[in-house]
Amino acid sequence: MTEQITIIGSGFAARQLVTNIRRQDKQVPIMLVAADSGNQYNKPDLSHVFSLKKSADDLTQMSAEQFAQDNNLKLQMNTRVTAIDRQLKQIICGEQTFNYQKLVLATGAQAIVPSIPGREYMVTFNSQQEYREHQSVLQKAQHILVLGGGLIGTELAMDLHRSGKQVVIIDKAHSLLASLMPAEISCRLQHKFSQMGIRIFLNNELVSIEKTDTELSVSLLDGHVIKVDAVIAAIGIQPDISLARVAQLKTGRGICVNRQLQTSDENIYALGDCAEIDGKVMPFLQPIQMSSLTLAKNLLGAAGSVVFPPMLLKVKTPELPLFLAGETQRDDLNWELSLSDQGIAARGFDSMKQLRAFIVSEQHTPKAFMMLCELTD
Amino acid sequence: MTEQITIIGSGFAARQLVTNIRRQDKQVPIMLVAADSGNQYNKPDLSHVFSLKKSADDLTQMSAEQFAQDNNLKLQMNTRVTAIDRQLKQIICGEQTFNYQKLVLATGAQAIVPSIPGREYMVTFNSQQEYREHQSVLQKAQHILVLGGGLIGTELAMDLHRSGKQVVIIDKAHSLLASLMPAEISCRLQHKFSQMGIRIFLNNELVSIEKTDTELSVSLLDGHVIKVDAVIAAIGIQPDISLARVAQLKTGRGICVNRQLQTSDENIYALGDCAEIDGKVMPFLQPIQMSSLTLAKNLLGAAGSVVFPPMLLKVKTPELPLFLAGETQRDDLNWELSLSDQGIAARGFDSMKQLRAFIVSEQHTPKAFMMLCELTD
Repeated sequence: MTEQITIIGSGFAARQLVTNIRRQDKQVPIMLVAADSGNQYNKPDLSHVFSLKKSADDLTQMSAEQFAQDNNLKLQMNTRVTAIDRQLKQIICGEQTFNYQKLVLATGAQAIVPSIPGREYMVTFNSQQEYREHQSVLQKAQHILVLGGGLIGTELAMDLHRSGKQVVIIDKAHSLLASLMPAEISCRLQHKFSQMGIRIFLNNELVSIEKTDTELSVSLLDGHVIKVDAVIAAIGIQPDISLARVAQLKTGRGICVNRQLQTSDENIYALGDCAEIDGKVMPFLQPIQMSSLTLAKNLLGAAGSVVFPPMLLKVKTPELPLFLAGETQRDDLNWELSLSDQGIAARGFDSMKQLRAFIVSEQHTPKAFMMLCELTD
Repeated sequence: MTEQITIIGSGFAARQLVTNIRRQDKQVPIMLVAADSGNQYNKPDLSHVFSLKKSADDLTQMSAEQFAQDNNLKLQMNTRVTAIDRQLKQIICGEQTFNYQKLVLATGAQAIVPSIPGREYMVTFNSQQEYREHQSVLQKAQHILVLGGGLIGTELAMDLHRSGKQVVIIDKAHSLLASLMPAEISCRLQHKFSQMGIRIFLNNELVSIEKTDTELSVSLLDGHVIKVDAVIAAIGIQPDISLARVAQLKTGRGICVNRQLQTSDENIYALGDCAEIDGKVMPFLQPIQMSSLTLAKNLLGAAGSVVFPPMLLKVKTPELPLFLAGETQRDDLNWELSLSDQGIAARGFDSMKQLRAFIVSEQHTPKAFMMLCELTD
């Protein structure tokens, strides 16, 4: 008989897992426990809420109740799991306890906020709930500082600008998207930002934020002081591993799992932004989709390993979209670029002349799917 | 009999012309009239005086007197020509007049200083004399703002930084070297600047400069105020056409000449930074060398036209040198780039797939000479 499955979390990973389990097994008992209301929304939409003038509630696609009914789940929403008793196989939620047989941690990740004086004035933007908390401030704000020029920071900065706001973007690195690609490629986006009027401060950091009556006064490492109405921290996310650590599961940056998605406890699994699979945290939709498919099968008795093919990462900056795949961050690649007013098409080769990565922009993005096959070969 | 030649100016163009004339004719009378002392120095050395710790006087390679003696010239130094009487074929220097038969204007160009409040606090750096005037300020200065991210601005910024100064570089454009090459190529230099600690403000302008007791307070268009010890204007040069205009010669941006280097007056020629040859001002050594060779022959009785082959332009930023040639500024080219830790090699093709331009950096620069031949074909 298949064992009952308990999932902690209600985000994309949890839902994908439920859907994949139910495709194969309509009956196995599934219980979903989550600290939030569990409403379903499409997280990448957060990068476009300003230009689309969507409120947090507009993002809701399906209530938790509807999802539970459709998928024959037991729901335990607004319930924070405080501990796991691995001996008794129980999760503890304050006064309440629930038994589990197979437990899946899909606790997600939290936006990182730098530890500086005034950090409490920074808003984060990593969930519908966080948007809900800050939307009134952000919608009113005319001048917004986005801290972080990575994937989320650039998407947000462009979206805020497109919605009519004055945007400043700040990053420690010497280029935008610095951890993803060479400066010579990302600088096309940097150039576009500059043309649009988004101000860019690279090689810089926030030192402190002070609140005055009317605005925030942000001091930078280089001595500049910038006055804005809001500061968004977009410098990355930190997998939520607190519960796993309390339970003494093996953790690294995330909750360590093998390719079967199994933690150091054979009855406990981890999935999604909280998981560190073979040493890598992959907080992107596609690896979560693939992991959840493998995990669904494993929870139902298989013992498969997830294999990640080359996956496409999209920088959703509509006026200059960039698609990339492979080891774009390697600094030993030889890049071959084609550059025109159509955009960039770049291929990265290793010393054996093997294609290891590519990046395409604008009118070259449709080629990405074909190039993904080249990468696989 | 060959006619006497009068040259107004004592810079590189004037000297090249003298040398080329004397290679062919040891006797023709030559008179050199110049407003300055006429000392010979190598102008590109100005881009490296700070890191090499050279004073203005260190740059002098040969005195005007020595040059005059070696080349059998009549010298009239420290003499400003105030007018040309084309009817009488005389140049007028205040009280003095000199007759000419063939007259060459090699009056050079002046650094452009933007018309903003406090412009008098900006220094320029377009001659040994300008360096002499400002060297004590510049040598003492710890924080220097370089206005202009073009050829001279980038060279100066890197040199000032290498000499231990804190440097800020500001340009109106959205990238460095914006009039010379695509942002995707120049951004390699931008990235290097950022890594070195040179601060870069693009899409920005100076609004005003105020002098306080201890420093200059520079206001930028975006509202920032930067405190520095000196501001160098490196936003380009303006051909000195004042004399030509007074004499009612045809002028455009420069003194208009045909490919024989002849102005609208058949007995007056122009050469060097002040000349506009077929609509183009070419303030670089190589075109001046080639023009002076043609002009020397023409002054001695020939009627040849100068033809410019593809010429190499070097951005002399030692930690990331860039060599370029062809129509690198065209925005309709398709660029093919190779990019690695060795540097960039970029070729620009037109819609007929003809090579129209190239840019190479760092370890690829030795290839430039071969690529120049490809461009010629």
